[in-house]
Amino acid sequence: MVVATAILQLICPDRPGLVSELSGWVAANGGNIRHADHHTDSGAGLFLSRIEWDLEGFGLPRASLPAAAQLLAERLGGEGQLHFSDQLSRVAIFVSKQDHCLLDLLWRTRAGELPMEVPLVISNHPDLRSIAENFGARFEHVPVLAEHKAEAEASQLALLEEEAIDVAVLAKYMQVISGGFLQQFGPVINIHHSFLPAFTGAQPYQRAWERGVKLIGATAHYVTEQLDAGPIIEQATVHVSHRDDVADLIRKGRDMERLALARALRQHLCHQVMVYRGRTAVFD
Amino acid sequence: MVVATAILQLICPDRPGLVSELSGWVAANGGNIRHADHHTDSGAGLFLSRIEWDLEGFGLPRASLPAAAQLLAERLGGEGQLHFSDQLSRVAIFVSKQDHCLLDLLWRTRAGELPMEVPLVISNHPDLRSIAENFGARFEHVPVLAEHKAEAEASQLALLEEEAIDVAVLAKYMQVISGGFLQQFGPVINIHHSFLPAFTGAQPYQRAWERGVKLIGATAHYVTEQLDAGPIIEQATVHVSHRDDVADLIRKGRDMERLALARALRQHLCHQVMVYRGRTAVFD
Amino acid sequence: MVVATAILQLICPDRPGLVSELSGWVAANGGNIRHADHHTDSGAGLFLSRIEWDLEGFGLPRASLPAAAQLLAERLGGEGQLHFSDQLSRVAIFVSKQDHCLLDLLWRTRAGELPMEVPLVISNHPDLRSIAENFGARFEHVPVLAEHKAEAEASQLALLEEEAIDVAVLAKYMQVISGGFLQQFGPVINIHHSFLPAFTGAQPYQRAWERGVKLIGATAHYVTEQLDAGPIIEQATVHVSHRDDVADLIRKGRDMERLALARALRQHLCHQVMVYRGRTAVFD
Amino acid sequence: MVVATAILQLICPDRPGLVSELSGWVAANGGNIRHADHHTDSGAGLFLSRIEWDLEGFGLPRASLPAAAQLLAERLGGEGQLHFSDQLSRVAIFVSKQDHCLLDLLWRTRAGELPMEVPLVISNHPDLRSIAENFGARFEHVPVLAEHKAEAEASQLALLEEEAIDVAVLAKYMQVISGGFLQQFGPVINIHHSFLPAFTGAQPYQRAWERGVKLIGATAHYVTEQLDAGPIIEQATVHVSHRDDVADLIRKGRDMERLALARALRQHLCHQVMVYRGRTAVFD
Repeated sequence: MVVATAILQLICPDRPGLVSELSGWVAANGGNIRHADHHTDSGAGLFLSRIEWDLEGFGLPRASLPAAAQLLAERLGGEGQLHFSDQLSRVAIFVSKQDHCLLDLLWRTRAGELPMEVPLVISNHPDLRSIAENFGARFEHVPVLAEHKAEAEASQLALLEEEAIDVAVLAKYMQVISGGFLQQFGPVINIHHSFLPAFTGAQPYQRAWERGVKLIGATAHYVTEQLDAGPIIEQATVHVSHRDDVADLIRKGRDMERLALARALRQHLCHQVMVYRGRTAVFD
Repeated sequence: MVVATAILQLICPDRPGLVSELSGWVAANGGNIRHADHHTDSGAGLFLSRIEWDLEGFGLPRASLPAAAQLLAERLGGEGQLHFSDQLSRVAIFVSKQDHCLLDLLWRTRAGELPMEVPLVISNHPDLRSIAENFGARFEHVPVLAEHKAEAEASQLALLEEEAIDVAVLAKYMQVISGGFLQQFGPVINIHHSFLPAFTGAQPYQRAWERGVKLIGATAHYVTEQLDAGPIIEQATVHVSHRDDVADLIRKGRDMERLALARALRQHLCHQVMVYRGRTAVFD
Repeated sequence: MVVATAILQLICPDRPGLVSELSGWVAANGGNIRHADHHTDSGAGLFLSRIEWDLEGFGLPRASLPAAAQLLAERLGGEGQLHFSDQLSRVAIFVSKQDHCLLDLLWRTRAGELPMEVPLVISNHPDLRSIAENFGARFEHVPVLAEHKAEAEASQLALLEEEAIDVAVLAKYMQVISGGFLQQFGPVINIHHSFLPAFTGAQPYQRAWERGVKLIGATAHYVTEQLDAGPIIEQATVHVSHRDDVADLIRKGRDMERLALARALRQHLCHQVMVYRGRTAVFD
Repeated sequence: MVVATAILQLICPDRPGLVSELSGWVAANGGNIRHADHHTDSGAGLFLSRIEWDLEGFGLPRASLPAAAQLLAERLGGEGQLHFSDQLSRVAIFVSKQDHCLLDLLWRTRAGELPMEVPLVISNHPDLRSIAENFGARFEHVPVLAEHKAEAEASQLALLEEEAIDVAVLAKYMQVISGGFLQQFGPVINIHHSFLPAFTGAQPYQRAWERGVKLIGATAHYVTEQLDAGPIIEQATVHVSHRDDVADLIRKGRDMERLALARALRQHLCHQVMVYRGRTAVFD
């Protein structure tokens, strides 16, 4: 039996007494803390906190918690977010033609590994419709042509709104998301098929082979306007040798892509990731 | 500039309000918490906590803190320990003839990687005297013969007392420590050259080779009366192939032994490890 | 464009001149060697060789190659096998209720990562029929009850014969295969959810959790009569912490199971694995 | 008992029959091949081979082997090198102020892990003299000032010649080697404290921290005129988290530096590494 919990994420200027103040607020309302994790970035003078407690028996009504957390954060001069563990995130998966990450995420969702629903799959190609529909997701083919990119993104945003999507995941979506899109929707999580910051941009495996590296990798990160430069959530590497040609790197890399994306997404969905100053703290 | 901190480790029965109570006690005395980490073992009904705060500006006199922590723990029905980050542990290293872990630990100590002093090296062989003395450690050769093991252990215990040793590290010490020894001194940390619980006992590399494993490992653990069965702190593995003979396994394994032992010891010395029910929680 | 190759696997007593004799035989018939790898086990006095050459332009008719390889091996007092890279192995996958390895293998086959066909999926439970059929595999539900195990295995063997299966893969098949079965069919590859030889038998994750290990693993191996003691092909490990309960170990372990099984199976299907004296040489 | 072997490294244009021709030459002279490994780079049309055989019983006199190998290579239109396993390479280690790689290499040499002698340690700082001399190496302090770099390099080259050095290893030598130096001496192996091609140049740990990566690495490579762009031999990575500051990255990175450098150097010294087209083939 899994117990529903509330999760508070808070960032504020560092000062003495914050841990006590936050945990005291939970305790004063009868909350039983399951996890409490904090991080102080001394250089930045910032305090980050993630506290998770049982909803059962908590003194404040559930509906009032987001506002209460907001007030608490404001009092501390920071920003706070309140999540509920039993409220599944609604996730849209963007794909192109490669199916391995899509299938992996859909399977993990069905297996209970990822606390999310996937009501929507968007692709600039029609190829993966049957996989999406097989797992009960609506599939929308939105072609993206260079000269009509704005229209395509408008269609995508309308779909995200229509399906009340919380998070978009680029699961080998071979298109760049524009800054305009990101101003209207977020967060967006991407899997890049290299060990960032090495090999940003196109054809990382080809370039890794040309450079003759002995390890290749994958990086899951939040998407920002600057290509492949967003906050990194998770990275994974695997050994390669001179016997591996580019096709082997692609094959071996796919395993790292799936692992890094699934781990990063799970951490995000469990509200373990906090972003600050272009970096992440991952409270796992 | 490194600031001195106090570190409280506490284990007690789980109940709501513990995080608040502990952090509240620190805050009430003006303490600025640097790290606070907790773990609840639901099955065991236990709460484990590690809280670290700046000594500077803390309201209670340093000398009174251990007793205050003790009182706090008793009030919660548990057990507590209070450590100071600027108080280096005094460590005795036990060795036989292999020098790689000894040299690695001594170098790491000198390099500031391990917050400890090594006033004493004890060996059942005379071979490693010059390494120990090179790094300023007293070297004592205590031969251990089966028929005089009790006397040898009595000599070792006397040396530990004489040098006011806090922790003993078995750095490839090829002798079994008796239960009687462990009743008089602890903690003792050992590095075992296998991936426990595989290949307990003698000649693990030979047996790993015979079994044809594709990965070998090393395990750092607290020593208990039952051989190679104590609480595990850290494990590391490395790939091997059919081309590796036993000598290759030994060579590759040495790297894992050094890494696992150094990581485990650092975690212990930073008071990040808590032992309960034959297991460890490592708050790193 | 992929060129079809012939692959010779040979084991014989070691003596000087073997590499020259084998490669000379290929060259004398006009073969262009793509890969040649050898291993000498000095202790056992054995020579193992894997040679792969282009079929195009080779002087001997394809149909005569297996017999020619056989003759060659006999002349050297050993055993040889001849494979063709363009002849896909026919693989039967045995499953119970867990679907992650099955789905992974079927996807990898479709993606071209595994040079095999999967005409048959056999299960002692009906649950995974739709996955198998989705990928075009025949699904046969063969219940295995303790009192009728012999009949069940006879049914399985009949299915393997009917579908002309080359290799059976136990992809989380929660039944023990009898010695009688193994005398009639082989090879059988199993994925065991522990880092063998640790935690052989049932419930390895539960037992790993109880022991408090810091790494868990998975092992792909050939099945022999002795449970979990067959020649190991591939192993993988992943870090766990005190925060992981048994369910987390199972979740994290599934990733290692999929990776270790897929890598081992690929190596087997590419005829890179040779078994001798209870061990494997993997020429990758 | 270790048997002395001859090792032939050969690169030539690919064509059928090469494996047979090389192994046939060894066999014709009564050689017992211990290892034979080959690689074909189809894109480049190149064949690379490494063959190792027992010197005992070989028909040609040892002294004649280098010339014989040279003739063989010329006949195939390529380049060849002949090495003897019992002829230890003479290695000079270049250092600055950091001692971890120096001490590690010296210890590994003494322990028999690295088949080399270290007659010479060169540093632009005087700090590490005692470590070098402790292990019996001559220590030469050659200050490198920007305005006198040419003179400094001339002194270094004279020392290398005087001590008949075969290989130079930059073990955290914080100076750039000039193109002129490299034209007069090679090979030079460097350890770079990042996962190349990420973070070339200065202060890679600082920049890795700023980028917020979740893995850091080290790269051992041959030095070429272009900074940090030479052929990569070995890479290693380790996980980091938001709790790690730059000092932690440096500490964790040191372990990867030692591992990657030691592995790469061992592969080089065992004549397992072949360089072609800015890449390496590592026959391990």
